Amino acid sequence: MEPAVLTLKKNEDRRLRAGHLWVFSNEVDVQRTPLTGFEPGQVVEVQASNGKSLGVGYVNPASLICARLVSRNPAHGLDRSLVVHRLKVALGLRERLYERPFYRLVHGEADGLPGLIIDRFDSVVVVQMNTAGMEAAREAIIEALQKVLRPSGILLRNDSGMRKLEQLESYVEAIGEVPESVRLEENGVTFEAPLAGGQKTGWFFDHRDNRAWVQGLVRGLARSEPPRILDVFSYIGGWGLQAAVAGAGEVWCVEASAAALDYAERSAALNGMEERMKFLEGDAFQALKGLRADAERFDVVVVDPPAFIKRRKDVKSGLEAYRRINQAAMQLLGKDGILVSASCSHHLRREQLVDIFQRSARHLDRRAQIIHQGHQGADHPIHPAIPETEYLKAFAVRVVSD
Amino acid sequence: MEPAVLTLKKNEDRRLRAGHLWVFSNEVDVQRTPLTGFEPGQVVEVQASNGKSLGVGYVNPASLICARLVSRNPAHGLDRSLVVHRLKVALGLRERLYERPFYRLVHGEADGLPGLIIDRFDSVVVVQMNTAGMEAAREAIIEALQKVLRPSGILLRNDSGMRKLEQLESYVEAIGEVPESVRLEENGVTFEAPLAGGQKTGWFFDHRDNRAWVQGLVRGLARSEPPRILDVFSYIGGWGLQAAVAGAGEVWCVEASAAALDYAERSAALNGMEERMKFLEGDAFQALKGLRADAERFDVVVVDPPAFIKRRKDVKSGLEAYRRINQAAMQLLGKDGILVSASCSHHLRREQLVDIFQRSARHLDRRAQIIHQGHQGADHPIHPAIPETEYLKAFAVRVVSD
Repeated sequence: MEPAVLTLKKNEDRRLRAGHLWVFSNEVDVQRTPLTGFEPGQVVEVQASNGKSLGVGYVNPASLICARLVSRNPAHGLDRSLVVHRLKVALGLRERLYERPFYRLVHGEADGLPGLIIDRFDSVVVVQMNTAGMEAAREAIIEALQKVLRPSGILLRNDSGMRKLEQLESYVEAIGEVPESVRLEENGVTFEAPLAGGQKTGWFFDHRDNRAWVQGLVRGLARSEPPRILDVFSYIGGWGLQAAVAGAGEVWCVEASAAALDYAERSAALNGMEERMKFLEGDAFQALKGLRADAERFDVVVVDPPAFIKRRKDVKSGLEAYRRINQAAMQLLGKDGILVSASCSHHLRREQLVDIFQRSARHLDRRAQIIHQGHQGADHPIHPAIPETEYLKAFAVRVVSD
Repeated sequence: MEPAVLTLKKNEDRRLRAGHLWVFSNEVDVQRTPLTGFEPGQVVEVQASNGKSLGVGYVNPASLICARLVSRNPAHGLDRSLVVHRLKVALGLRERLYERPFYRLVHGEADGLPGLIIDRFDSVVVVQMNTAGMEAAREAIIEALQKVLRPSGILLRNDSGMRKLEQLESYVEAIGEVPESVRLEENGVTFEAPLAGGQKTGWFFDHRDNRAWVQGLVRGLARSEPPRILDVFSYIGGWGLQAAVAGAGEVWCVEASAAALDYAERSAALNGMEERMKFLEGDAFQALKGLRADAERFDVVVVDPPAFIKRRKDVKSGLEAYRRINQAAMQLLGKDGILVSASCSHHLRREQLVDIFQRSARHLDRRAQIIHQGHQGADHPIHPAIPETEYLKAFAVRVVSD
């Protein structure tokens, strides 16, 4: 059966031709193909105003991004065979890059599957279907995963905030054997991560390389003296525990969720690090104030907050939050310390974070040097035509008094 | 003796107060302090229009950047004691980060010594004094180096292009024992690098982390099959030899300088890799054409050209050169290959290079994924108030046909 046609207005095919995969609702020729005529998630052939095919995609009339391309070949639909092919191409990259099967397997648009996220924890995979098109292709996706990976369990974490924008219901569902938590390995360190009860898919693989860099830093510092580390917004201890294993003398984790800290403690024990680690439950801003009042000082402070800027309208308040937390973190550094600062807000530009470092250092009459810049890992590829596929930033900033 | 005063026009102190270190000649109140009244390199106290001190710097009336701050404390001059202090702070960072004494020790402005570059090869250091102020402080710098490092030899590579802008003569001078070449180690691989006869200071430490990433990539690829690597603009084989040691099956180096290739061959032999490596002398653009005509294909192509954009006026022609070389490199990749592409042009923005990847991939009807982004290493810190201290970019782009 031929798919229905979605026709664009004149000249609105340019972005797609250049490589982008999104169609915005104001680009559709609604005289010829009214959006109200489509079901949410319906597969369509997208055509330019002159009738030339741009490829196959899916529609959501309820969303500002009203269609996303899944293939430039009009002969392909969003079916099991396309998903199997895309999964194999995605797997090909991860298997080359990672020795062990713990990674983001599919990163949406950048892996040719717009709106789909899949994280792999060995034989368990966690899936987010973030658009109506992916929800509609649910069975094809599950079958494709079973064919390519034969997982023992699939957890659908279909409860992300993005689904609201697509007017999709929120649900979590387990297919096969899905345990409460999984054991995973990152940079040689073992973690226990919650699945259905965790944040997002349970673990943030995106910072793998940045945490590896911090491990190298800690090893270097430990050659003269085992450093003292503070891990702010620690979640289940990803940065802190890796720093401890790399040779930190002491690691303090600050986190608002008691459940997350329980996992951090379990992982610390798994690696024999429980005596080096201390866990502070509470609000990060308050906790940093308290540490300052107690005149605590650290050699490295890691600040990896949740997104303070989720939408463009949050930029102003979010920027202020990034400024406050980074300045507070800098104040806890010793005379020659290193701030490791991250942001997962797509709408925060790198230069804005750099500006925050500069202003904070000047404010404290200290000198800053950016010694490292990090990004999301290779299992979170970036589509070069879609800036929205890049979101993660990390910096290491040396702050000296002289 | 109090230094002379250089007075800025009203409001022209803002950039310095925010943390920058440069004064442009149009910002000086030449009525009160005519630039013609200063010697090139003369130490001055820089003052705001209202007479408030902004710190101590040095002047070059012949340069567009007519003064650079060396200290915010007006009690410090650019003397041996300041240089000793700055060297110790700089060394503190490198000793923490690197196990072996091979690194950039001083990266100009970002290490608080504007215009000064020092690369360390164990007991030999190579120095570039790129401004009149640093040339004037030559003896203080040499004495400070001798005090802090006790090097067996100091090579002054005072023949950089930057010196022309400062109207300084070009010369190379050896102090102590300076051999023709040095042995160095990077990421566990041994190299022989030319000193007086090499490019810049003889070796490019700035890509250390990016080369380490490529080593990891090659190890991953080699798990299924030892990959075939092409290293374009190889100079003395930094990328290619590290790829060979990491497990490449075959590495081809393309380089215009026969002398550089001689060094690459010597280094290959030092690591027992001579049988895996092949050396092609010639122009990179021509060589890539020839490889394409011969239908050669590679799993990884590394393109690390010299700066195609040295000044802002070169942007247009430089962009075109980057486009041509990256597209030619992409055409030599197999069905699922990885382009590693770098640029050391400060005036080329990251987004411009990303756009080149996207356009080239679309042109070849292939799909691109950016899987890694690299920067200059930690021994080339970036001053967060001085964008000019950042210049190096590296990307790994997976290019698939599907």
